[in-house]
Amino acid sequence: MKGLYFDGKILSYRDDLPIPEGKNEVVIKILYAGICNTDKEILRGYHKFIGIPGHEFIGIVEKGSSELIGKRVVGEINVGCGICSYCASGLSRHCPDRSVLGIIGRDGVFAEYTTLPEENLLIVPEEIGDKEAVFTEPLASAFEIMQMVHVDPDEPALIIGDGKLGLLIAQVFTYYSKRVILIGRHREKLSLAQKWGIETYLSHELQGEKFQYVIEATGTQSGFSDAVAYTKPRGYLILKSTTASGYELNLSPVVVDEIHVIGTRCGPFAPALLYLKEKRIDVLSMISGIYTLSEYKKAFSENNKKENIKILFK
Amino acid sequence: MKGLYFDGKILSYRDDLPIPEGKNEVVIKILYAGICNTDKEILRGYHKFIGIPGHEFIGIVEKGSSELIGKRVVGEINVGCGICSYCASGLSRHCPDRSVLGIIGRDGVFAEYTTLPEENLLIVPEEIGDKEAVFTEPLASAFEIMQMVHVDPDEPALIIGDGKLGLLIAQVFTYYSKRVILIGRHREKLSLAQKWGIETYLSHELQGEKFQYVIEATGTQSGFSDAVAYTKPRGYLILKSTTASGYELNLSPVVVDEIHVIGTRCGPFAPALLYLKEKRIDVLSMISGIYTLSEYKKAFSENNKKENIKILFK
Repeated sequence: MKGLYFDGKILSYRDDLPIPEGKNEVVIKILYAGICNTDKEILRGYHKFIGIPGHEFIGIVEKGSSELIGKRVVGEINVGCGICSYCASGLSRHCPDRSVLGIIGRDGVFAEYTTLPEENLLIVPEEIGDKEAVFTEPLASAFEIMQMVHVDPDEPALIIGDGKLGLLIAQVFTYYSKRVILIGRHREKLSLAQKWGIETYLSHELQGEKFQYVIEATGTQSGFSDAVAYTKPRGYLILKSTTASGYELNLSPVVVDEIHVIGTRCGPFAPALLYLKEKRIDVLSMISGIYTLSEYKKAFSENNKKENIKILFK
Repeated sequence: MKGLYFDGKILSYRDDLPIPEGKNEVVIKILYAGICNTDKEILRGYHKFIGIPGHEFIGIVEKGSSELIGKRVVGEINVGCGICSYCASGLSRHCPDRSVLGIIGRDGVFAEYTTLPEENLLIVPEEIGDKEAVFTEPLASAFEIMQMVHVDPDEPALIIGDGKLGLLIAQVFTYYSKRVILIGRHREKLSLAQKWGIETYLSHELQGEKFQYVIEATGTQSGFSDAVAYTKPRGYLILKSTTASGYELNLSPVVVDEIHVIGTRCGPFAPALLYLKEKRIDVLSMISGIYTLSEYKKAFSENNKKENIKILFK
């Protein structure tokens, strides 16, 4: 089959990759796949991944149980061992022996086919278009914040970073907070958020104000210190960025201001699908380009352009 | 009066410092003062402090309301503005305009006299000796952890760092957790903790185990990554160390494991005094030396020796 392959150093397009057999898993034909910042970090060595990258997708089941054949599905990307205490308590996302689609020990979705266990899959309601459904995984990641922190609707929330994840998080927060502020570096992306009723500022325009909830979604480690400075004493600073390399940080302000710094990662698919079904989240405006797998160099270079938001593979 | 003065670069002993008048505050004659790691950081430029350092003390009231005169007191070190939302909610420790005894904008206790507002002072019960009472402030800082996090007694707690604060925190945790583990680099300090019923290991001896509660009390920034590695997914990592300089860190594991990183600082004096009164905490075994202010060079050099725990000024 056609697909992208990362050998640990170089990403290349290949047309000789074996179609996965599935064994005990469902075989899915990919309709659309999305590029995430984590994919960029993987190409920089994050998790020392080797194989087919990519984890955001919608596909059609080609091989699996009869109820699933021909159905459009999205899939939870973590595959747990099934027997440890985390898996037993429904937290297979934290199974120490997990594989993760296109990230840890498991080929991903930048290819014609992928496989996942049946229990990882959710059928996509017909109200959700293909190009919307491919946002389910990153949207679930935005909803994970609400799994980790109780959000007081009377306290304003600040989202830092107008990239693809920040724009999704800001939209989700409009259903949880009376006042949602997004700061970033790109006027066009901020004006998109303004259409959604979100208060926006260029990063340097917001000075002196502090917030009970601050979400760091810049995709870098360097934004941490700024995010701390925006957080009220005893407030919550939600981290979303995972990167391959570190950065010089001083955690003393976290101690002095007694800040709760909370990492959050993959999230629940069900609310993401519900919000997409009910058209509560505008994802179509976030698509900046759609490419074939063989156009991967163009796709990744477009993904790196600051004016673009989400790049899809078809 | 006699005292230590830090001019921003050099600490010196002086006998010509003016005795503070007090104005609207209580004047306290210092009996004992303790050296804290924060004092070391202040001499490295932390908070750009200039003046008399020191914040751990017990003293006798010389000037103030009649009920206080002649009484032994300890004092909460943060002095809020009294009118902001933090002060109004009892959190003057987080008042943005606060001064902090010997740390921010207020002379401290490495001198014959200091001053504090009356509402900052607590009378020391007679059951508590002078050399015990001087531990009230750091012990309160250990109790602050319980103000910030609900500790499940069935989950083991790991304290990292066998310094003065780590030893206090470990003792406090024995009243909150069924299993308390302390790791450090000094056999003698660890054997002291063993006498208190605490499970101890040299740092390299504890491998592979992860904990729901991890307390980072090494006094450095470099211990953070180790502390993260000891924390269970969705567990709590409590930070205590404040330092003048940063360190290269990668917060990605915090995100991937969805760890709650919680800074905690100064704490409530009341439980600290209660525990000291009831002899629940052994602080006398932690005193490694007592010096006069004029012996400050020796005192600070003894404080830097790894085998020593708490150094007091008399």
